[in-house]
Order: sequence, then C-alpha cells, then structure tokens
Amino acid sequence: MKREPRALDPLNLALDAAAPLSLQHQLRQKLVDAIHRDVLRPGQRLPSSRQLAERIGVSRNTVSLAYDALLAEGYLASRSRSGVYVAADAAGTRIGAGRPRQEPESPLAARLTPVADDAGFRCPQHWHRYPFPFIDGRVDAELTPAPEWGEAIRLASARREVLQWHQDGGDSDDALLVEEVRGKILPMRGIQAATDEVLMTASGGHALQLAGDLLIRRGTPVVLERPTDAAFERRLRERHAEVSMLDPDLREPLPPGAVVVTSCRYGFAAGSAYPGRLLARVAAADGLVIEHDVPAGVQDGGRIAPALRAFDQEGRVVYVGGLAPAVSCGEPPGVLVAAAAFIERARQLRRSQGTAPPRLMQRAWAYFIGLGHYSAGLVRAGRVMAERRTALRDALNHYLHGRVRIETSPGASAYWVSVPAGMDARELARQAAAIGVLVEPSCRGDGREALCMGVTGIGAARIREGVRNLARLVRGDLSPSSRRMEDESIAPLQGKALRRAMAGATLLYSTVYGVPCTLEIHADGNLVGTAGYAGEDCDRGHWWLEGDRWYRQWRQWAYGEASGYAVIVDGDQIRLYGEDGFLADTAVMTRRTTARRRE
Amino acid sequence: MKREPRALDPLNLALDAAAPLSLQHQLRQKLVDAIHRDVLRPGQRLPSSRQLAERIGVSRNTVSLAYDALLAEGYLASRSRSGVYVAADAAGTRIGAGRPRQEPESPLAARLTPVADDAGFRCPQHWHRYPFPFIDGRVDAELTPAPEWGEAIRLASARREVLQWHQDGGDSDDALLVEEVRGKILPMRGIQAATDEVLMTASGGHALQLAGDLLIRRGTPVVLERPTDAAFERRLRERHAEVSMLDPDLREPLPPGAVVVTSCRYGFAAGSAYPGRLLARVAAADGLVIEHDVPAGVQDGGRIAPALRAFDQEGRVVYVGGLAPAVSCGEPPGVLVAAAAFIERARQLRRSQGTAPPRLMQRAWAYFIGLGHYSAGLVRAGRVMAERRTALRDALNHYLHGRVRIETSPGASAYWVSVPAGMDARELARQAAAIGVLVEPSCRGDGREALCMGVTGIGAARIREGVRNLARLVRGDLSPSSRRMEDESIAPLQGKALRRAMAGATLLYSTVYGVPCTLEIHADGNLVGTAGYAGEDCDRGHWWLEGDRWYRQWRQWAYGEASGYAVIVDGDQIRLYGEDGFLADTAVMTRRTTARRRE
Repeated sequence: MKREPRALDPLNLALDAAAPLSLQHQLRQKLVDAIHRDVLRPGQRLPSSRQLAERIGVSRNTVSLAYDALLAEGYLASRSRSGVYVAADAAGTRIGAGRPRQEPESPLAARLTPVADDAGFRCPQHWHRYPFPFIDGRVDAELTPAPEWGEAIRLASARREVLQWHQDGGDSDDALLVEEVRGKILPMRGIQAATDEVLMTASGGHALQLAGDLLIRRGTPVVLERPTDAAFERRLRERHAEVSMLDPDLREPLPPGAVVVTSCRYGFAAGSAYPGRLLARVAAADGLVIEHDVPAGVQDGGRIAPALRAFDQEGRVVYVGGLAPAVSCGEPPGVLVAAAAFIERARQLRRSQGTAPPRLMQRAWAYFIGLGHYSAGLVRAGRVMAERRTALRDALNHYLHGRVRIETSPGASAYWVSVPAGMDARELARQAAAIGVLVEPSCRGDGREALCMGVTGIGAARIREGVRNLARLVRGDLSPSSRRMEDESIAPLQGKALRRAMAGATLLYSTVYGVPCTLEIHADGNLVGTAGYAGEDCDRGHWWLEGDRWYRQWRQWAYGEASGYAVIVDGDQIRLYGEDGFLADTAVMTRRTTARRRE
Repeated sequence: MKREPRALDPLNLALDAAAPLSLQHQLRQKLVDAIHRDVLRPGQRLPSSRQLAERIGVSRNTVSLAYDALLAEGYLASRSRSGVYVAADAAGTRIGAGRPRQEPESPLAARLTPVADDAGFRCPQHWHRYPFPFIDGRVDAELTPAPEWGEAIRLASARREVLQWHQDGGDSDDALLVEEVRGKILPMRGIQAATDEVLMTASGGHALQLAGDLLIRRGTPVVLERPTDAAFERRLRERHAEVSMLDPDLREPLPPGAVVVTSCRYGFAAGSAYPGRLLARVAAADGLVIEHDVPAGVQDGGRIAPALRAFDQEGRVVYVGGLAPAVSCGEPPGVLVAAAAFIERARQLRRSQGTAPPRLMQRAWAYFIGLGHYSAGLVRAGRVMAERRTALRDALNHYLHGRVRIETSPGASAYWVSVPAGMDARELARQAAAIGVLVEPSCRGDGREALCMGVTGIGAARIREGVRNLARLVRGDLSPSSRRMEDESIAPLQGKALRRAMAGATLLYSTVYGVPCTLEIHADGNLVGTAGYAGEDCDRGHWWLEGDRWYRQWRQWAYGEASGYAVIVDGDQIRLYGEDGFLADTAVMTRRTTARRRE
C-alpha cells in the first residue's frame, strides 16, 4: 500500500458543521487560502478524495465536489492515474514576505481635515448584544423580514440579471426601482414625480449631503427648523453658511435667497394651513427648501401624510427621504426628489463621488417593493412598534414617575426622557451603558437635555427590566461606593461556579478612554477582544482559573501580561477585583446564546 | 352555474413567459400593483384560482401560490366557502389624486453649485448595444463570471446572514471582506496592512474622493504625476489647491508639505530605484502621497508588482485602489489603505456622508474572493484581454498604417491612437459614434490629443470590422456628402423588406444637442425612446408603414406629430429622408437579438 501523502498535515482543515457555509464551501475556502498563502505549493500532491474525506470526517462527495470546483478554476490539476496536484500556475498570488510595517507616528495624523460629526453620539458596534438597547432607529431581528429579503435577492441575482449588470452605464438608476419608488413609496407622502425627478442615493444621509453640497455655500442664508440634525448643522457652520433658526409661527419674512431646512416630521395633517404659508414665505424670499423626511415606518407604520414637496407647485422643494430601516436589511438607500435640473446635477455629483448604489441592491429593493413585502412589512412593524411603545410608556410611568418628564410625537418610536436636575445627559448615558442600558443623550428643540429612548431595537418583553435598571441609576442606588472587595455584600464566585459563569460569556466594557470594548470568553480557554466603534482594535488571548481567581493574558493588550481577578456577578453586571482588593473593572455580562434566543 | 366575477377585467394580467421573473412572481407583482393603484379595491372578490388560471393561461398551481403569498402578507383575505377578496385593510397605500406638478422653470436650476466633471467624456448608457464599443474599462458579458457571482450572492444572502445584517453598526466593514482583501488582494501589490489600516469604499473613485477631501484644502501644494485624472485635477483647482506637475526625473525638491498624487500604473519593477527616490523626496519635504492605483485585472491579468505603499516605512502613503471591474458585476468597491489615524478619519467622513458599501455587497465579495473566483477570474480575463489586444493592434496596423501612431503601456487594455493633423479628437469620436464605433477622446501625458481604444468591452471577432469603419472615417470616405435622397446610390427599402428591417430593430442616435438616444422599434407597432446619459428622458409612440414610407409618432417628442420617412439601410447605418427629400436623420441600427448573441 502506498504511503498516504502528508501534504495537508500542516494545514488546519477542521470544518465546522455549525458554520453558515456548507462543508464543501468551507473546504474550498481553506484550500484556496492555503494556495494563496503558499502553504500548498505548485506541484504538491493532494490526498485522494477518499483519504481526505476520512481524515477530516466528511463525506467523500463533499471532497470530490470541492476538488472539482478547484480543478475547473485552475487551482488544481489532475494527472491521469496519479491524482490531484496544486496547479503549476495556480492562480494564487502569494503573500509577499515584506517586513511588517513600522509606523509609530504617521505624519498623516497631523494633516487631516476635521470631519463634522466627531462630537455626536456614536452607537457601539455591538449594540445588539447589550441587554437593553434603547437606541432609536437600530432595528432588531424580530422585525427583519428575512425570507422576503431572501426571495428578493434571489430574484435580483438570477443569471439573466447578473449578465445585464455590466451594461450599466454607472450613472442611471435601476429603472424598475425608480418605477416602484414613484408608484408605491413617494405616494405615501403624496408626492408625484417624473422619472427624471428622482435619484437614488446610498442612504438618507447621503441624499442630505448631496442636497447640501449643491445648494449651500459660504454665505448662503440657511434657516433651520427645530429640532435640527446636529451633524448637519455642524457641517453647515463649517462651510460658513449664515445659519439661523426658523420661527415656527412664520411671523417674519425669510432672508432673501434663504435655504430652509425642514423636517416636516410626520407629514402634514389634512387641511393644515402651514405648508401653504411656509411655501409662500419661501417664494416671497425667492428661497428654496430642503425637506429632510424621517425614515418611514419606524415612525408611523406606513401612515400616509403629505410632505411639503406634495404642495410645491413652483419646484422650490428638494425632498430628501429614504426607504424604511424597519423592513430593511442594513442601511436602506435614500432618495432625492426635485426638479429635473437639480436631479441632473445631483447625478453628476454622485458620479464624481463614485457613490451610486450598487445595481444588485437597487434591483433587490425593486423586487422587495414590487412583490408587496415593503408595505406589508411596514404594517407589521407598525403593529410591533405600537406594542413596544406602550410597554415603554408604562414602564417609564411606573418606575420614574415624578422624577422625569417624558415626551413623544405622534407615531414616533421613541420617548424623550428629561434628565433630572443636577445630572448630565452624556454622563447618565455613559453610566447606563455600563449597566447594559443603551440610551442616546439628545437635545430637545428648546435646548433642554434629554435621553432619547427608542423601541426599534428592543423586544417588548425586555423593556420593563431595562427601565427598572435605569431608574435605579437615576435614584442613585447604583452609585459606585463599593470600590473595595471587603465592602461587597456578594461573595466572589469560586471553583466550578466561577468556570460556569465565565466560559462562553461575553463582557461589554467601556475602555478608560470611553470606547466600547467587547470581550468574548470562549469555553476552550481563548479570548477574543474587540475595541472601538468599528471594532478596529482587536486582540486575542487566553484565560484560565488559578485558585479562585480568573486569569487573563492578551497578546498585546495590557502589555501582554497575565493578571488574576476575584469575580463577583450581580445580575447582568460583573465586577472584577484585582489582587490588591480594589475594583479593577466592571462590565455587562451577556451570553451569545441569550442573544440568539432573542433573535 | 355562478357567474364568474369580472373583478379582473380592467386589469392587464398578461404574463410574459420569457421575462426574467417567474409567472407566479409576475402575477403577484401585478396584483400588488393593482391594489396599490386602487384598480382592485378593498372587499373586491377575486376569481377562483381555477378561473384565473384558465383566463390567463397558466397552471392553477401558479395562481394558488400567488394567492397564498398575498394572503400571508395581508393583501388578500379569504372568507370560508366564498373565495378570496382584497383585504379590507390591504397594506396598499393608494396613489394620491394630486394635480400633476407644474414646473416650467424651477428656481432651483439657477442656484446649483457646479460639479467638477461636467466637461469630461461620458459613456452612453447603452454602450453595450453599439456594434463596436471600444470604451476602456466597460466590461462585456463574455468576461462576467455569472455563475460564480450567483454562488457568492446566494451564500451572502442565506437566512442566517440576513438575520445578522441588522446588527451592523453602520460604521465597520465586513470583517470577512477585510480579511480577504488583506490576505489576497493587497498582497498582489506587495501591501501588508493591519485591519485598522483598511477601509472599503463605494468605488475606487469614492476612495480617491475621500482621500482628497481629507488631505487637500485651499492652498495645499499638490504635485500631480502624469497622466493625471482629468476630473480629479479639475476638482483640485476648484478647491484652490496649488497644483503643479511632478518632474518624472525627480530633479527638484518638492514644495514643503506637498501632497504628491501618483498613479504608479503597473507597479514597480523589481529592483527599481524610483520608489525609494520618490519617497525620499517626499520625506525631505515632509510631504504625503496619494497613490491612485489602476483597477487590477483589466490591465495586467493579475500580475504581481509592488505599489509605492509597499515601500512606505513612515506611513506617508495613502493607497487608493479597488477590486477588479474585469470580474465584477457592476461597479466594484474601492479600498483605502493608510495609517490607522487616517483610516479612522476616513471612516468618520464616510459615516457623515452616509456612503458605506452595503453589507450584502461586502459579504458577497468576501465569498467571491474567498472561494477563489477572484484570482481565477483575473487570470481568465487576462488571457481574453491579451487576445483582444493583439487583434486591435493588428487591425490598427493594417487599416491605419501611416496615418496614425499608436501607443500603449505594458499590460494595458487600451491603445492610444493619435489624431491625424487637422482633426479634433472630440469631433472624431462624435462622428465615430454616429457610425457605431465608440471611442473615448483623451489627452496623453504631454497634452497631445488621442483616441483611447480599449478592449474590455468588445469581443475579438468584432474588433477588425470596427477598426475598418473608423479607418473609413479617418480617410474621409464617409463625409456626409449625400444630403439629398437623389444623391443616394442605394435604393430605399420598400414593402415587406422595409417592415422586416424596421420591426425589432434598435436605432442609436445622437440628438442635435449631443445627447445619446436609443429608439426601440417593437414588432407590434410600439416605439420606446430613451434619451440622455442616464436614460432620464423617455417617451413612447407608434410606428406604421404607408406606401413605402416609415411613419412614427411620439406622445410628446417631436410635438407629438406623425412624420414619414424613406429608409435607406447601409450596413450598420440607417438613413431617414423626409418628405422633402432631404436627409432627416442617420443612426446606427442594431437588433436586440444580435446583442444577446454577443453575450
């Protein structure tokens, strides 16, 4: 019997039956990877499909299919009767051996133009793993119409569709999507638009940015309606626009040539005189309007109410809107509606930026809307949201009655909760995040500080407990008095209980410099850490128990040194005490399985 | 026997077996549409699935499946034993009856900020329907790896993936794609990058725009390497940057704090001293570099050659690249590689613009690369391109020898063809388009006018004929002397021959104001016209024969008046003579079937 080739021994070909990819795909991915990394070299012989199948514990068919695909693509070659080899000219391009780059203080850092939204609130990357994510506009999996999206994407990526993508001039939008938006989306706001009055954008924010770039320059008088979009307002000031606030009663004339930025949040009630009066003021000043609509659906469950653009007979209004995040997968595209001359210029700007929404996404949205999933999804989302809104109102009333005032707007998915005297909204939000309650510090129209608590991302069943925890914080029950181990009323975990608590847990921290950090404690002794709003700072490490202490050691973080802690678990919170008996860290403790169950 | 409900009589439910959507999907789409448009009203009864199936000639199962889907989504309701009705609260939102908007001269038009690339060459939307599309960078269907894309998208849109999209913080890139780009794409340019040194963008152009916005302000000394990107250069001048040209021999020091914009087109040859010398110049001036790479693959079939960034030890280089259009479906994403501090700021800017690439696209690219399709596709594209390049070189040499000079660069997919003395590149390109040959007027590094002729979008078999037609134009054989019918040497088509020629044809024009226009002549007597680079101006009409003349009448175009023409077909060209005997129009004539066969 011939000796089995040992080609694959240095390879990690362990496949994961629970992974999203099929075993065959995983195997292909790993083999391609090994060829790219030069672990498998040209001319090297691979084991037979039978041998490999036995070794890695999959069916022979799985290996054969993977080999066939790689043979067809030229990664592997077969020689008759002697088996399968890595092709001599394997398409793989090797990773260079170049030195690791040294860049202690890049000269770039000092030279960068500041970006407008530095100061705004930023939602942590792992918001969905917090036990109580009251972030308005972040949508949880309960609302995601996953099978409907699967269908729309399948249709949009049929072979016949794919073959037509290359024909895209890069400048036009998908005609089918424009039809659906004109026929089914814009009418929800009473807007009729010709095909050359509509442009699709990467997001609602992108549409606003294009409109602002085209209409507002140094010295342009801009009149903002409250509440304003804070990031957009900063950006206007950076451009040296002449910013003022709109008098809600429209008593004064507008500055000549003014650009009014209005939100018209929930559309206008039937018979309201306001749209006509505002447009008359705008026309008298020979001004223009950027109407920045809120995303549909999250707010109003698909109700119909006309936007200002629906009243605009002179073409003075640029409507900035977007598809509904409540039924979207990821950030939905935005839409601009305005006179054809404006749309033409916006299309040019989009081209020069290189930011047209990809054809696949446009076509998938067209099918999603055309097959009725969009409207049906909005109605369903509106129902779910109404239930959650009620749960939030009742909980706020029960636990915080007399301590805060709450406000909302008709159909909104959030309550604005006033901040008790002597407290700071940002600091309160920071402390709340540390106990697992995510809320957004926010300013109301009149400048009062508030917490914005939304229900788009949290199920009705979790709302009461989240509000109770927030109330404990507001009442001062959670003041960080117990800084020393000896002051704790709860005993630290020991032995098996300690291992059981830690293995498989996920800890959510803030770093001392205020950036969110996620630490996954795997049952096999591995640690995976992710820090930063975009998870851009990562490290790996190990953990173990010694005595009744939990030890961790990172490759790089914390100077790569091992350190041990006594562990106290207090509901959702975990407290780690160092060897000196002082509190070293607190974090929110959650488990992947919990997160999955909530989905 | 009960009378059949006539609910659907006013509806056009004709289904098209040849359409990309299945019959069931088409039926659902049409029913949803009718509900939205209030053609079907709440409470209205629908025919039974058997009745409807018979009426529209599909299987009963098709109708049942469509009804079931709409019942599940709440569009329809069923009452026991009495059939299926439009639901009383059908999710449809009706189209408002609002007046058609009047906007003769929108005040917006006069107020728009100019956009940088107004003056550049623009590829017609229907470039792929021209018989000879020599537009470099537009990729034809022969190169599109459609089944591989189908697989990648299918994997990326599996239910488990879709359910995770909502967790996206909106700010991070897909970790899997970043890994694939770091592991398999950047090494082709010798670049090693940490995860926090990589940012994905909507396109290569978008990456360039972000880099420019972050590094270049009023007064920034910018030193451009030739050949420059014309649109980017205009944009720099609009920002009042201090633009100068890079001395290719690097004899002079750079201005202090200069930002050098270089293309490093095909990477650096092994052992070249140039990268080191350029970086030393940059460091001496405390400057920075924006390295704008050409798209991989179209140019070099996946060859490996290091970029400047690969030599950069101090973090002075911002690398601007992108994935390869040659194996892409639609515009591929771009990538920025630079020091972490820069990437962090670019990520903020991308967020404030709302232009992050959609998660679905990122994940599909990750699978496409990870399963080996990317590298394999590049190798294949390189082979196809080499064959086409040779065909183009041979044809240029044969038909234009002595009249033009041709140039190319190693691995490029285009030749630059000099414009004969006394001719203007733009005018020549315009005339060539009128006979079906699409070429891009372009400037060489030294300012000489040229035509850029690429082979990314035209099969090898078509190249010779396209060059022959161009040569006839250059030699003056096609001068528009025959303005009157009586001067024609070809007889006009008559009777059946005329009908055969026109029915099913597509005509490609330029309007008198220089915008491309496509006219589809359907066999059933309908006309569909699309004008503008983005197809934003559309009309419909009818055509018929009377005597031996071809008549057409638009709804709006040409004042909605009917007019008749004598028709002469001369190869790919069609000439229409009005009733006065003068030439009214010339156009390129193609057929959809031809276009499809070429795919």
